[in-house]
Amino acid sequence: MLTEDSYTEWLRRAETDFLPHISLDCVVFGFHAGQLKILLLKIRNTEQLALPGGFVLKEETLEAAAIRTLRERTGLENVFLQQFHVFSDPLRSDPANRARHLEGIGIDSARAAWFAQRFISVGFYALVEFSEVDPHPDMFSATCSWFNLEGRGTLILDHDLILETALTVLRSQLNNQPVGYNLLPRKFTLPELQKLYEAILGKPLDRRNFQRRMFAYGILRCLDEKRTGGAHKAPLLYSFDLRKYQKALKTGLHGGW
Amino acid sequence: MLTEDSYTEWLRRAETDFLPHISLDCVVFGFHAGQLKILLLKIRNTEQLALPGGFVLKEETLEAAAIRTLRERTGLENVFLQQFHVFSDPLRSDPANRARHLEGIGIDSARAAWFAQRFISVGFYALVEFSEVDPHPDMFSATCSWFNLEGRGTLILDHDLILETALTVLRSQLNNQPVGYNLLPRKFTLPELQKLYEAILGKPLDRRNFQRRMFAYGILRCLDEKRTGGAHKAPLLYSFDLRKYQKALKTGLHGGW
Repeated sequence: MLTEDSYTEWLRRAETDFLPHISLDCVVFGFHAGQLKILLLKIRNTEQLALPGGFVLKEETLEAAAIRTLRERTGLENVFLQQFHVFSDPLRSDPANRARHLEGIGIDSARAAWFAQRFISVGFYALVEFSEVDPHPDMFSATCSWFNLEGRGTLILDHDLILETALTVLRSQLNNQPVGYNLLPRKFTLPELQKLYEAILGKPLDRRNFQRRMFAYGILRCLDEKRTGGAHKAPLLYSFDLRKYQKALKTGLHGGW
Repeated sequence: MLTEDSYTEWLRRAETDFLPHISLDCVVFGFHAGQLKILLLKIRNTEQLALPGGFVLKEETLEAAAIRTLRERTGLENVFLQQFHVFSDPLRSDPANRARHLEGIGIDSARAAWFAQRFISVGFYALVEFSEVDPHPDMFSATCSWFNLEGRGTLILDHDLILETALTVLRSQLNNQPVGYNLLPRKFTLPELQKLYEAILGKPLDRRNFQRRMFAYGILRCLDEKRTGGAHKAPLLYSFDLRKYQKALKTGLHGGW
């Protein structure tokens, strides 16, 4: 719970424990029912949506800070995390914006010198398997839940820019990072895999072409098992051959030079 | 010239004008005579080699800081610059290392509190056309000059890691960034283009395969001009069709989905 005391204690620790001027924000992607999802915090006592973000302890790497932030603010652990861009516009977190933001939560902004400083924020993206995680909010947040990428509403500060940049980077890294491996359940059908690619790329793909290329990479293992329970003819299940997947990613799925 | 006075003045300004804890380092690539080159500073009164690095003014973006740093420390202007990774190991610039480093230059490290703090450094890579630039050192450096990537010697602090990471990123972005456009002179031969790719990838490529793929991208314009003066049969000159190059880079040279 966010109380006057817990907030005072948090601020006292922030000013002694964290490096000033440096923050991080996490764009957490999931995939469910054919949709790319994004994990957002709703800030307590407001309708404001934010990426889970945090700060860096004085003797901590950025990567450790991102892992700790995700655990503290969303409950997520053991996720695939990757830094992707640093956001350094001096106006990205201008004091007036932050004061409004703090007042919205019911915090006296005059006391919150920590939040009034300029922050340069390192963006991380996380890929998590939707069905495996159970996100929950921290004391600053009313909810921590999944939103569809489309129609999610506007985020605070420059968090929409951070999210859009993460998506652009994710697109460009589809052939160099184990995106499918981290977003899909262990067993999946080819239509599910294709829907994931379509959701990330934001466009429909030709089914035959997609499957031909996916098979050519040699990273899929057919499981001799079928997805049952659907209305359609039961499709075959596949999983990734992780060793071959990682080998193929080294030169890029489209092949190297 | 680095004098006691100019150094005192620099330190005074650093502590008032720069954000603490945040630095940047630039990996400047060039290409000449079939070799990938790297621009390094030799620190005054030492044999120590360093990447050109600097700090961020209180109201400056990282990108503006990198442009200013390159101008101030190497004289380079109007270069292609791209942030690529943040280096945040708390031990990357530990005080003992920095003290030794400063003593080497003849600076009293006890006075240099600015340098004793922890820095999280944002790496930028720059691509410049070797023949077009005339680098010169700043007051902290004895020389500012090109080194072959191989056999360059050891750099200070974690600058070798920063350099190796930049090279890895450059390799992975060969199909998404105008690498050839920025490293080659405006007119070049196909063997020169291939040598550039080989230098970046660190391996020989099959000539026929390379040329077939390059032509398939549709980004080369044959100039109906020949390189003269060489011992061999004069090869044709090419230039990039920048409009087509940039369009092809949007989906990646290997083609999108």
